[in-house]
Amino acid sequence: MKSKRENIKECAARLFRQKGYKATSMRDIAQEVGVEAASLYNHIKSKHELFQELLLQMANLFTKGMNEINDSSYTPLIKLEKLISMHVKFAVEYTDSISLITHEWVHLEGNSLEEFTELRDSYEKKFEDIIKDCIDQGFFSPVNTEIALFSILSTLRWLYSWYSKKNDINPVELEKEFIHCLLDGLKKK
Amino acid sequence: MKSKRENIKECAARLFRQKGYKATSMRDIAQEVGVEAASLYNHIKSKHELFQELLLQMANLFTKGMNEINDSSYTPLIKLEKLISMHVKFAVEYTDSISLITHEWVHLEGNSLEEFTELRDSYEKKFEDIIKDCIDQGFFSPVNTEIALFSILSTLRWLYSWYSKKNDINPVELEKEFIHCLLDGLKKK
Repeated sequence: MKSKRENIKECAARLFRQKGYKATSMRDIAQEVGVEAASLYNHIKSKHELFQELLLQMANLFTKGMNEINDSSYTPLIKLEKLISMHVKFAVEYTDSISLITHEWVHLEGNSLEEFTELRDSYEKKFEDIIKDCIDQGFFSPVNTEIALFSILSTLRWLYSWYSKKNDINPVELEKEFIHCLLDGLKKK
Repeated sequence: MKSKRENIKECAARLFRQKGYKATSMRDIAQEVGVEAASLYNHIKSKHELFQELLLQMANLFTKGMNEINDSSYTPLIKLEKLISMHVKFAVEYTDSISLITHEWVHLEGNSLEEFTELRDSYEKKFEDIIKDCIDQGFFSPVNTEIALFSILSTLRWLYSWYSKKNDINPVELEKEFIHCLLDGLKKK
């Protein structure tokens, strides 16, 4: 069973996504949870506390996934496929939180902003290194790795918004098509 | 020389991008232009007027470009390359306005919202039809056209944000690398 706190976080994530972090009040969150605003303060200190917990939890999930994939003995090409699968899986499972790390993270403050951007930068650095390894080991032609990274990540970042409109699509098929579009390219060989 | 109105629009676009449409006041715009808020009202009625003009101007530029390319006798593959070039060119030239059509368009109201979404939907429809033509005419392998469209457009939509951080990159080289990443794919043939 979900804890009270988990339930509050889910409601908050949904509202932050729909209305934006700034425009969402503790009163709105209480209404969504179905309790009085006053009783919400028994569980959480502020909306920023909820917000940073949601964002850092998501960033830590991506970091953990990245480390597991990166430390494996798979080839860099398979590592990229596994990273794409992970993004598809998270977009399907945590649609609201993914929206927040894409658009709303700028509202983080203090230490949590620093922690978040460090996790993100280190994630992107590892992603780019895997692309470099693909080139070095002859899987990829010698592309500009920064552009390749940007091109893959921007597609993966928008995925949640597109997926939530079309959720009749089988996520496994979606993953297969994305790996194909992003890595193999569209042109007939 | 730029007209007074053009100058006001450029300042407004910059602020709407930096602070968001909602958080920007007429007073902020006046300050950016370097005039009194009262005198701004001699040129424009409201910030929504500026906002819708900026967004519809950009949407019409994309529509015009799309129609010219689509009505040409190029193959569908070259049409896609030309569309990618157009997106790169606009991201470099109109960075602020492109940011608005990506993130802030939800704040459009009434007729302008309807006009904007119609232009956007028709743009995406034509883009997808060109991808379909690429498959029908044997340039592409038979991919899911909706996913291919989404994958290309999401990269092109993020381009402005990435480019504004790295504007030491030659736009022509950028265009070449994007066409390569998006159409040829990363894998060595």
